[in-house]
Amino acid sequence: MKNNQRGSGNRKAVVLLSGGLDSATALYYAKKKGYNCLCLIFDYGQRHTREIVCARKIADAAQCPYYLLPICMPWQGSALLNKKISLPSVFHDQPGAITARRLNDIPVTYVPARNIIFLSFALSCAEAIGARSIFIGAHAQDYSGYPDCRPEFYRAFEGVIAAGTKAGTEHKKITVHTPLIDKTKAGIIRLGSSLGVPFELTWSCYAGGKRPCGKCDSCYFRAKGFEEAGIKDPVITAGISNR
Amino acid sequence: MKNNQRGSGNRKAVVLLSGGLDSATALYYAKKKGYNCLCLIFDYGQRHTREIVCARKIADAAQCPYYLLPICMPWQGSALLNKKISLPSVFHDQPGAITARRLNDIPVTYVPARNIIFLSFALSCAEAIGARSIFIGAHAQDYSGYPDCRPEFYRAFEGVIAAGTKAGTEHKKITVHTPLIDKTKAGIIRLGSSLGVPFELTWSCYAGGKRPCGKCDSCYFRAKGFEEAGIKDPVITAGISNR
Repeated sequence: MKNNQRGSGNRKAVVLLSGGLDSATALYYAKKKGYNCLCLIFDYGQRHTREIVCARKIADAAQCPYYLLPICMPWQGSALLNKKISLPSVFHDQPGAITARRLNDIPVTYVPARNIIFLSFALSCAEAIGARSIFIGAHAQDYSGYPDCRPEFYRAFEGVIAAGTKAGTEHKKITVHTPLIDKTKAGIIRLGSSLGVPFELTWSCYAGGKRPCGKCDSCYFRAKGFEEAGIKDPVITAGISNR
Repeated sequence: MKNNQRGSGNRKAVVLLSGGLDSATALYYAKKKGYNCLCLIFDYGQRHTREIVCARKIADAAQCPYYLLPICMPWQGSALLNKKISLPSVFHDQPGAITARRLNDIPVTYVPARNIIFLSFALSCAEAIGARSIFIGAHAQDYSGYPDCRPEFYRAFEGVIAAGTKAGTEHKKITVHTPLIDKTKAGIIRLGSSLGVPFELTWSCYAGGKRPCGKCDSCYFRAKGFEEAGIKDPVITAGISNR
């Protein structure tokens, strides 16, 4: 796992793109570093397809090719896959609860092994096209809640790459780059802003209305991030005046 | 990774089922150990769908439910995904070459990160349904050629499970069982025979004719395994008299 270095020589990269602002920032970061990026966008049965539409627009805006891959997880086990499970919004009224969020408080929006599946596809793609770099927009806030966003997970995954791939056995190292891993949401927004990320094309809301709901965890962290960064969010959220 | 132990208490298992005799034997082994097995069968764009038909029949014969999951790997990179790449049959005329096969002689039938993708889905499913065991029929002959069949790969994957899943962070260990890992093909066939594996439903051939081709690597190893085990293969292979 590398936070800010680029691979030697090989300029191909596979970028995981979700439609949110984190992965969009990771994509623009990789581009800035000189990588030729191929994006992977997943349709994994999430509650709504708005983020997929956004991801495609972001890839187009960045002038990067992409694959849109269907992922079938009929066992569900997450509020992001099962509309019968309510989305979390508890943190709005508990300002102190966010930093106190611990790993045994994994949100109901956790999708079992989702990032492991996504990274596995990225790895397969990277091996097949001869890329040595994978970029993912995981970061500190996420890994306070999601185990597959933690630095130790990415280190462990690199062990799998080394032991379980042709590239690994041939000592052609494939690196998982996590350039946002230690950043706050505000820090990511500042970085994204400096890189020209089209925030107006990004979608963070867990719900799939015409506008972001302004109530879910993800809307809350986005609003808080933009506020702390001192940057205006170009996406207008329901019920929030867009100053 | 455990070769022959069963989990304590939890009797649910996810079994990767391909239609070949190895995974069928792993399924019957898990059943014999008292597990309630849910099988995952993948349609990943392999050269032919015969093995998928066989996998479904095997699951039905074992009276186990299954999910048939589509996997999209448009980047290909393998003779199993791209019919323009010839299937290997070099070992037929070189009896000594099999044991000399080294890791830098990875066959063209290697599919980039395939087992990593399959295991990731098995892990997601196991977490969602509350299973603590995954069974896969990888074995010694495979790991002479395929990096994602080696014992060190499975050990590395367990590191990913521990670091990257909710189950791992809650110390609810999910184990990848590889009961065949040290066995030869003949040893697997002997074990399968003792477990009542319906070998007549299994399919090993890389090609997808009416009958196994008798020429590809996989046909060769199957025939050699049955011969060494002293057991008659109920599947009649083209061009080979079935004594």
